[in-house]
Amino acid sequence: MKNLEWHVSEWINTPEPLHLEALRGQVVIVCAFQMLCPGCVAQAIPQMKAVDELFSSRDVKAIGLHSVFEHHAAMTPVALKAFAHEYQIRFPLAVDAPGKDGDPMPQTMRLYQMQGTPTLMLYDRAGQLVRQIFGHIPDLQLGAEIMALLNNGNDGEP
Amino acid sequence: MKNLEWHVSEWINTPEPLHLEALRGQVVIVCAFQMLCPGCVAQAIPQMKAVDELFSSRDVKAIGLHSVFEHHAAMTPVALKAFAHEYQIRFPLAVDAPGKDGDPMPQTMRLYQMQGTPTLMLYDRAGQLVRQIFGHIPDLQLGAEIMALLNNGNDGEP
Amino acid sequence: MKNLEWHVSEWINTPEPLHLEALRGQVVIVCAFQMLCPGCVAQAIPQMKAVDELFSSRDVKAIGLHSVFEHHAAMTPVALKAFAHEYQIRFPLAVDAPGKDGDPMPQTMRLYQMQGTPTLMLYDRAGQLVRQIFGHIPDLQLGAEIMALLNNGNDGEP
Amino acid sequence: MKNLEWHVSEWINTPEPLHLEALRGQVVIVCAFQMLCPGCVAQAIPQMKAVDELFSSRDVKAIGLHSVFEHHAAMTPVALKAFAHEYQIRFPLAVDAPGKDGDPMPQTMRLYQMQGTPTLMLYDRAGQLVRQIFGHIPDLQLGAEIMALLNNGNDGEP
Repeated sequence: MKNLEWHVSEWINTPEPLHLEALRGQVVIVCAFQMLCPGCVAQAIPQMKAVDELFSSRDVKAIGLHSVFEHHAAMTPVALKAFAHEYQIRFPLAVDAPGKDGDPMPQTMRLYQMQGTPTLMLYDRAGQLVRQIFGHIPDLQLGAEIMALLNNGNDGEP
Repeated sequence: MKNLEWHVSEWINTPEPLHLEALRGQVVIVCAFQMLCPGCVAQAIPQMKAVDELFSSRDVKAIGLHSVFEHHAAMTPVALKAFAHEYQIRFPLAVDAPGKDGDPMPQTMRLYQMQGTPTLMLYDRAGQLVRQIFGHIPDLQLGAEIMALLNNGNDGEP
Repeated sequence: MKNLEWHVSEWINTPEPLHLEALRGQVVIVCAFQMLCPGCVAQAIPQMKAVDELFSSRDVKAIGLHSVFEHHAAMTPVALKAFAHEYQIRFPLAVDAPGKDGDPMPQTMRLYQMQGTPTLMLYDRAGQLVRQIFGHIPDLQLGAEIMALLNNGNDGEP
Repeated sequence: MKNLEWHVSEWINTPEPLHLEALRGQVVIVCAFQMLCPGCVAQAIPQMKAVDELFSSRDVKAIGLHSVFEHHAAMTPVALKAFAHEYQIRFPLAVDAPGKDGDPMPQTMRLYQMQGTPTLMLYDRAGQLVRQIFGHIPDLQLGAEIMALLNNGNDGEP
């Protein structure tokens, strides 16, 4: 699992960096997105906002991961902050660390072998990645999947 | 609980009448609606179709309850069958039994003290009514609530 | 043109029957629909309500034509009145006269050789049918087509 | 009228700068927007794309005006080009010239006394500004207003 850590160059909307390890006991949902990806803006971001509002933050941690693999000069951290302000995003946002050795794909995106944005990752209370979804998943299904993880007895303790 | 039985004058889309008692072990979701209620047609019926398609019918039983409390001459069982055909409804539909002694409100609607349509009723695996919602509930929340009931250990056995 | 008259068995939302002849000088838009046709309910009826609200009734006359060619026992004039009430339709509605000699298609629908519902008919200020559209036409295009007819100098006088 | 010229620092999607003077004979619709304004992205830009697709470019010229009055570091010309690519915008885009003397509002926006974005400007065939709308205007109404201008006999010739 340690090779599935997030590689983040900067955090927004959180006083300190977040780590899966420290989120044990919570269900974690990460949405990898790009601020200029139309499907992310129209569907994935509003869905994440709804998740963040519906569930208690003690139970479910919603995180946005800005995984920029194109138009790098446009989707900078500065631009992301303006985007977060305009779209009233309250949940933490992570900037996926730029790719190594000229790789246009950022590090976390590469590590998770994502096919594009949006991609959702669901982690159980023990920090295990249990689902990775490229594209849109209907709200009804997402609500059910999150609750299934919440009801899983595993609270991160062995 | 026995006074919360459904009072049904006719069933559609099922070879035989359904009873809560016989559905023990399944989560049951009933949507009381009227075929000419705009909110039912635009939101509640599509949501019930999505529930019916997403969950296994062994786990979740979706049922429509046609609770007509106005325009009785328009929303007849014959009209309901045409509606079900046109809107491609596959789940079972029950016709709420007409009110007694000139009551415009049908019997189940009266018994459950519903305020209007749409109204959702959620029953756990033991057949207990655990939620009654007047109006719209977002898909994300409904998916979560259904899954919470599915994951409840109670399988109807004492 | 006289064979393109409307054959109507009953009018709703108007103190007296309407005739193309008497509407000379106005652009007339007729929407043939069925109250249990999902595309009519979701798109065509809201569009007609928007047309009715946007344009002055002196300039544009919006009319619904209930052309029932299936589920006749369900979509009766009584049911149509309930539908008009629930969907808050203020513009005049005509009941297309039942087909002759057992024809399931009503008379106006047969005469106009409509392929189904919804079908829009646009008439210029002189009462000439200038457009017949089966299915959905986007609001932007419909607004433009209505205005083109309004701006046509022909005011019904030869 | 000459004080209502556009002040543009850069053009996109056009081989050469556009001028109202040279567009005489065409109806011109300009949408002042910001690429990170949610209402612009969700409504105004799709509406402009629809206008551009529906009407012949000989009759109607659709132009986007990127009038950035906030988050200047995020909404740069480079970012705008990425936005235009991702949202598949084919019509010409103008970058509103940065405000003078530290004015955060760009020059054209200041000149037209716009209240925010989106703002639509409609010009008749003679190049006269006939409508300026802050916020959303329904497609039905916009289609009608454009056609009213198209049907206006004035072809730019005196």
